[in-house]
Amino acid sequence: MDLIIKNGTVVTATDTVKADVAIRDGKIVAMGADLPLDGAKVVDAAGKLVLPGAIDVHTHLAMPFGGTTSADGYLAGTRAAACGGVTTVFDYPMQRKGMTIKQVIDSKKAICEKEACIDYAYHCIITDLNDGAILDEMESAVASGITSFKCFFVYKKEGMMVDDGVFARLLLKAKEVGAMLNLHAENPDLIDYNVEKFLAEGKTSAWYHYLSRPEYVEAEADKRAVHWAKHLEAPLYLVHMADKEGLEAAIEAKKENSNIYIETCPQYLEFTSEVYKRDDGRNFVCSPPIKGQESQDALWKAIKNGGIDVVATDHCPFQSHEKDWGINDFTKIPNGCAGIENLYPYMLSAANQGKLSYNQVVALCASNPAKIFGCADKGSIAVGKDADIVIYDPSVDFTISVDNMHSDYDHTIWEGIQVKGYPVQTYSRGRLVYDHGDFVGEPGWGNFVKREKRPTK
Amino acid sequence: MDLIIKNGTVVTATDTVKADVAIRDGKIVAMGADLPLDGAKVVDAAGKLVLPGAIDVHTHLAMPFGGTTSADGYLAGTRAAACGGVTTVFDYPMQRKGMTIKQVIDSKKAICEKEACIDYAYHCIITDLNDGAILDEMESAVASGITSFKCFFVYKKEGMMVDDGVFARLLLKAKEVGAMLNLHAENPDLIDYNVEKFLAEGKTSAWYHYLSRPEYVEAEADKRAVHWAKHLEAPLYLVHMADKEGLEAAIEAKKENSNIYIETCPQYLEFTSEVYKRDDGRNFVCSPPIKGQESQDALWKAIKNGGIDVVATDHCPFQSHEKDWGINDFTKIPNGCAGIENLYPYMLSAANQGKLSYNQVVALCASNPAKIFGCADKGSIAVGKDADIVIYDPSVDFTISVDNMHSDYDHTIWEGIQVKGYPVQTYSRGRLVYDHGDFVGEPGWGNFVKREKRPTK
Amino acid sequence: MDLIIKNGTVVTATDTVKADVAIRDGKIVAMGADLPLDGAKVVDAAGKLVLPGAIDVHTHLAMPFGGTTSADGYLAGTRAAACGGVTTVFDYPMQRKGMTIKQVIDSKKAICEKEACIDYAYHCIITDLNDGAILDEMESAVASGITSFKCFFVYKKEGMMVDDGVFARLLLKAKEVGAMLNLHAENPDLIDYNVEKFLAEGKTSAWYHYLSRPEYVEAEADKRAVHWAKHLEAPLYLVHMADKEGLEAAIEAKKENSNIYIETCPQYLEFTSEVYKRDDGRNFVCSPPIKGQESQDALWKAIKNGGIDVVATDHCPFQSHEKDWGINDFTKIPNGCAGIENLYPYMLSAANQGKLSYNQVVALCASNPAKIFGCADKGSIAVGKDADIVIYDPSVDFTISVDNMHSDYDHTIWEGIQVKGYPVQTYSRGRLVYDHGDFVGEPGWGNFVKREKRPTK
Amino acid sequence: MDLIIKNGTVVTATDTVKADVAIRDGKIVAMGADLPLDGAKVVDAAGKLVLPGAIDVHTHLAMPFGGTTSADGYLAGTRAAACGGVTTVFDYPMQRKGMTIKQVIDSKKAICEKEACIDYAYHCIITDLNDGAILDEMESAVASGITSFKCFFVYKKEGMMVDDGVFARLLLKAKEVGAMLNLHAENPDLIDYNVEKFLAEGKTSAWYHYLSRPEYVEAEADKRAVHWAKHLEAPLYLVHMADKEGLEAAIEAKKENSNIYIETCPQYLEFTSEVYKRDDGRNFVCSPPIKGQESQDALWKAIKNGGIDVVATDHCPFQSHEKDWGINDFTKIPNGCAGIENLYPYMLSAANQGKLSYNQVVALCASNPAKIFGCADKGSIAVGKDADIVIYDPSVDFTISVDNMHSDYDHTIWEGIQVKGYPVQTYSRGRLVYDHGDFVGEPGWGNFVKREKRPTK
Ligand SMILES: [Zn+2]
Ligand SMILES: [Zn+2]
Ligand SMILES: [Zn+2]
Ligand SMILES: [Zn+2]
Ligand SMILES: [Zn+2]
Ligand SMILES: [Zn+2]
Ligand SMILES: [Zn+2]
Ligand SMILES: [Zn+2]
Repeated sequence: MDLIIKNGTVVTATDTVKADVAIRDGKIVAMGADLPLDGAKVVDAAGKLVLPGAIDVHTHLAMPFGGTTSADGYLAGTRAAACGGVTTVFDYPMQRKGMTIKQVIDSKKAICEKEACIDYAYHCIITDLNDGAILDEMESAVASGITSFKCFFVYKKEGMMVDDGVFARLLLKAKEVGAMLNLHAENPDLIDYNVEKFLAEGKTSAWYHYLSRPEYVEAEADKRAVHWAKHLEAPLYLVHMADKEGLEAAIEAKKENSNIYIETCPQYLEFTSEVYKRDDGRNFVCSPPIKGQESQDALWKAIKNGGIDVVATDHCPFQSHEKDWGINDFTKIPNGCAGIENLYPYMLSAANQGKLSYNQVVALCASNPAKIFGCADKGSIAVGKDADIVIYDPSVDFTISVDNMHSDYDHTIWEGIQVKGYPVQTYSRGRLVYDHGDFVGEPGWGNFVKREKRPTK
Repeated sequence: MDLIIKNGTVVTATDTVKADVAIRDGKIVAMGADLPLDGAKVVDAAGKLVLPGAIDVHTHLAMPFGGTTSADGYLAGTRAAACGGVTTVFDYPMQRKGMTIKQVIDSKKAICEKEACIDYAYHCIITDLNDGAILDEMESAVASGITSFKCFFVYKKEGMMVDDGVFARLLLKAKEVGAMLNLHAENPDLIDYNVEKFLAEGKTSAWYHYLSRPEYVEAEADKRAVHWAKHLEAPLYLVHMADKEGLEAAIEAKKENSNIYIETCPQYLEFTSEVYKRDDGRNFVCSPPIKGQESQDALWKAIKNGGIDVVATDHCPFQSHEKDWGINDFTKIPNGCAGIENLYPYMLSAANQGKLSYNQVVALCASNPAKIFGCADKGSIAVGKDADIVIYDPSVDFTISVDNMHSDYDHTIWEGIQVKGYPVQTYSRGRLVYDHGDFVGEPGWGNFVKREKRPTK
Repeated sequence: MDLIIKNGTVVTATDTVKADVAIRDGKIVAMGADLPLDGAKVVDAAGKLVLPGAIDVHTHLAMPFGGTTSADGYLAGTRAAACGGVTTVFDYPMQRKGMTIKQVIDSKKAICEKEACIDYAYHCIITDLNDGAILDEMESAVASGITSFKCFFVYKKEGMMVDDGVFARLLLKAKEVGAMLNLHAENPDLIDYNVEKFLAEGKTSAWYHYLSRPEYVEAEADKRAVHWAKHLEAPLYLVHMADKEGLEAAIEAKKENSNIYIETCPQYLEFTSEVYKRDDGRNFVCSPPIKGQESQDALWKAIKNGGIDVVATDHCPFQSHEKDWGINDFTKIPNGCAGIENLYPYMLSAANQGKLSYNQVVALCASNPAKIFGCADKGSIAVGKDADIVIYDPSVDFTISVDNMHSDYDHTIWEGIQVKGYPVQTYSRGRLVYDHGDFVGEPGWGNFVKREKRPTK
Repeated sequence: MDLIIKNGTVVTATDTVKADVAIRDGKIVAMGADLPLDGAKVVDAAGKLVLPGAIDVHTHLAMPFGGTTSADGYLAGTRAAACGGVTTVFDYPMQRKGMTIKQVIDSKKAICEKEACIDYAYHCIITDLNDGAILDEMESAVASGITSFKCFFVYKKEGMMVDDGVFARLLLKAKEVGAMLNLHAENPDLIDYNVEKFLAEGKTSAWYHYLSRPEYVEAEADKRAVHWAKHLEAPLYLVHMADKEGLEAAIEAKKENSNIYIETCPQYLEFTSEVYKRDDGRNFVCSPPIKGQESQDALWKAIKNGGIDVVATDHCPFQSHEKDWGINDFTKIPNGCAGIENLYPYMLSAANQGKLSYNQVVALCASNPAKIFGCADKGSIAVGKDADIVIYDPSVDFTISVDNMHSDYDHTIWEGIQVKGYPVQTYSRGRLVYDHGDFVGEPGWGNFVKREKRPTK
């Protein structure tokens, strides 16, 4: 035995039990009362929760956007992740026109191998079918462990949108080869119409970012995507769902046993569109924008009753001086916010305060992502799983600040937010990577997660 | 260590892992790879699934009905349960007018202590508030571990029905004291109307049992119960839900975060109302009756997507000569069918054939019942839980027959039904009680399960 | 020709046209431009609307209640009706246990023949099937022109409620014989529970009348009634619908082509439950009570889109000293309010202010009631119809006061309410009965309206 | 008086009365019993119904399509219309890129003035905003009596589709200027995907026309259009609705008081997609294609309960040799079928057989179209309206055949269909244009109908 975490309360999506956890060669090899120590290192988790590490299935590291790059690269992003209790991170490499899936993925592999402090996987963003070659390549991509692909119902003028026909082709091919299609759903035509109108009227503040992509603009695209997935009987994963009407349509389809999965993000659960009226409103600019109170209420309701499957971050921070580009024109603000280090503390704090159960948080942030995306060795504290473990102290108070985060960004939308309880240690395959406030891992430790394909029947 | 189950695949509601399970003093004390044997008895579960024992939360043992008593008493019923992989059974003692809750429960305790082969708990059926004394007594009943109560929206002429006012009082008191109200929902007035009409028309076969309590007759009562629970914001557990319209209303309310829980039974999942046209139709007579194909489809849909929380049996068999009382008058047929020994094999067989996952079956038959009804030590294979364990062989074929069942009844509606896979051993708190076809337990082994109350906020 | 109404704008449910209307022998015999005068009396309606008289299908005249009788008898009630543009009134005679339908109706006939100033019809309230004799009598009642029957889902302790079985029998018999069942839907058990609780807590003001019968208490009964009507495929007319949830369920069933008809009343459209907090709150006490803003909004929405079929009054005023009986106990307040003279002016004023169209008001208050209840000669300005006509001046302002009403009551909930536009003349079968503020009709003029039965197929 | 139609039964959307109808100068000037003859021509309508002429708001006369032109030009089309009881026809002139609305309309005016046998109006099809000039021109178009515009959510490759942004601009401008936007809703991307796939697979029969545009392909576009209309709070008229899912979404929005209007066509009510398997399946090819039984049932349900507002024809026949172009490739079949002469006889026959009421048919085919599209003088038998009148004999049997139709086409999908009852005469503004089987009107008689704009609040 290498390590024994003793005296803690182990939380899975189902159970909450007192049990020691024994780790050997990066795996959980035993759980029990009074496990023999066998010379293992012992960590005392008395009074603490022992949780599976979170899997943040939605991040954009080192992502080019509007002439710059998101503030966290693979090193900083995975470092921050580890310090927030995330032990696996999914990145979204994006195809430029003409690239094969393999080229897209390979372009990231070398840097990740060098920089990643925790394990990582890729969803591949598809923007162009390359006359069908991409469809042909999907099966081998799945065989190589890339089992999810993403596309946009937005960014039409930017040439990144897929139309409904391409979307249908991707849905059907993904279903055929055991992959999952992810979708960012907003309606580009209405956004463009609104933007043109607002700019013509001199309405340029961050508030108009929201007003140009309000609830019904996201809802249309959500509903359309759900419609196709339902009728084509293909699995679909909706990323960063933020509005009530789209959410309800997706949940309705799930009730009809469509294979639809819903993700939302902490920023949609904590803030409302009112933030865009703040002086620092541009820092909150992301797409889809944060919506109104009704949508936030609907998201929380669905979090509680299982309507939402996953909470992930869409982590994509930009520096203040980059956000400032949009001071006089909201369309110039780089889109995206920080979150990777806040996900698990935020959700666990909600559990700690009784909004939902710890088991539910584990399901939303670890077990469900692992199952949905085929990470067989991840997502639970169970014998045989990777020893991706977070030790969580429910008794401490913590106030989030850019100063106590471990990213490279220079500000955070979470500044000043207080959480109850906080991770004290994070283990990645049995190796301590975060310890009482400090990153103690190393670049290059992280491994690529080769994922299992979905059953294709 | 007393016992180690080696080499099996452990299934919980969340995880499916290879792990040995070590048991001491009736508890699961460790799970792991290659646990030290320490002189423990070893059972090899290679190629088998290691499952938590099922919790059948709906049975009527030794229940008086229409001048007779249900065919399985506490000994036979719990013996059959053990042989079907059930390790905890809930009985429904019924209040006669004027009795206190304590009197109702105490009337069963002595016999259960003597006869029960596995652990047992009670839901107490309330038919009369005793001028409010019952309401006053509910809190102490909860303190004694009786945390659920049942009432009827039917059996009006029999004096067992509660009206909506009594139902509201029970709902609100249960909510206040941390208990759960269970309900059998059918509309008595329409049943009586239909029965009177059919008998007057000389329509007396079992088919008219169904036609006198068809889908819409159950649905009305389901919907009414859901309405009150939703608006009074009180928890409600709907037993033996069998019809589509009521089911959909209940699921809709759950989506609104009403605390509604839904149970169905294997007979509603396997058969349709067509059975009542068979020569032996009267053997299938139970209330509510088995419904049509549309309802069965709706039940399966909800089983798959989590709309239904629990599958239990409503086990209440009668002997053939008793069922025969109704040959010429369906109203004379004692209501109820066998099921306690078929629940887990039937549901696991469905998983084995791909209709749902094993994890889901564990949730429906073990984890969810344990959580909903406050059995803290039951319902999962996890360190610290009672060693209520079933070893299941997915590879065998089994044809159900009264000859290979372990009840006292002389026929079964499940005769000839084939299942894929079957339990090979059942352990009750670590003691082997069923072994490859034979009951090997003992009367009196079973303990009363003192349950935890629900949070009352 | 006896009379020609010239130069007016004729409004039907469909059309709005300039046309003269010629009347002979109490009938409309011609409509046209410049009809020949032929020595007829001529009334100039230039600038006025020429409307069919309203049909108030819900009134309680001389109704015994709690030791008194509603303030308006047949004379006063029909006099007030005429002055408010109502030309046909439906009364609700109530069966006492043991009475035949014929006895119930006959008990009213003599007095109506003597007192009624306008035409009248009866819905017969059934409280007891007399061992089925009532069901047997329904066909002959229909033959005599009594084609609608009413029952209560409330007033259980008062012995006036029908249970669901009796309701089903009435629904099915009504369907068979071409009649319509009307229903007052509230849940008595919850009311009784609430009342008992409030009185025990010393909560005795009119506000607790509302709180003891709030939205969900009416909604349950509405939904249950709709359920039976839908599944038994029988026509049902829901009187005085006042709550959103019940309304939506009824409209949903209409969308499924159930034969459900919905009535609401002006008091539910104008006031909210806030009135029960007023010092004179007891004057507004009626059952069902006026509901909250959400319900009022839902009613108006359904008024506009055709979800509601009829607006009628439930006219049943009591004198102030009678209302005062309940100053210290809301259960002692006689239930009912005035409205018969306000119906048409109120609804037409809403049209005048653009909330809906005049055609819609004519449909809601005249054409629809006539069609639904089989008044073949009533409800429209069309050749061959009875000359029941209102001349309406849209340009005047009118403030309602007990002083300018024509009832026998001593106060009105409508005191001070301002309407835009007001009737200037009412004709009953061609006879002027109301003229610029004055009643000019005569007791005994009114005829019994023998109604047509519904198609029975 | 020029003409008196005596002894008939006049049917409006509201009333059914015995009345003579007097006509002078093309207008209905009086209705009544025994109107003075004054030397007028007298037509005896004893035993007949006297109905407003139908308004077919959806036709394509002399429409260019795929290298040919629809078989009925303005003369033949309006001649056939008259013979089927249609007295006003709406044509759909289509903008080619760069044309102004005025140019589009003017291109039709001269020919219509010369050829039209009955009155006519135009909806203008917009395919291109001309950099916004079209939006600017809409107000003056409305002033000239063109108060409705149509666009396509389909025909993307043909350059006729508007995207969602253009659609939003049109919706909002139409709302602003008191116009109505009409929409043909199908999803082009899925159609193109399906077509490409089927052709590649050698699936070329008419059946694949249906399979390439099945229910869900229309439904998506319907739902999207409804979404925008609802959220932008703009009026929208959905033409030729043919599928259940889209229909239900549109009706749901109407219930929320969105200003949505729904049209369907007789072919969707009479046939199902099974026709595309027939040898002459290509003759039924139109877009959207005729759907399955479930959709037909849903359409009829909505016809009966008022969910559908209008029935019109989408009349656009092609000759057999043109239909034959697609014998080996369904994409080559000119889209469209005959119907203008069948609309009223078909719907009235349905009423005659009890499926709905005559009043409802009048509403669907005459009153509603007149109101929705601002034809103030049309759509009802009422004093002051144009004398557009059909005399209908409910007692005759009629079998539709190309031989007894009055179009220029050489076949009809209605061949062999039997109707109960048939028009015997049609009057256009008092002039007899159809008489017992024969067209007796004249080209050039028809007038342009200058329509009223909608209220803009
Ligand atoms: Zn995105
Ligand atoms: Zn993203
Ligand atoms: Zn039961
Ligand atoms: Zn039971
Ligand atoms: Zn009432
Ligand atoms: Zn009443
Ligand atoms: Zn079209
Ligand atoms: Zn068309």
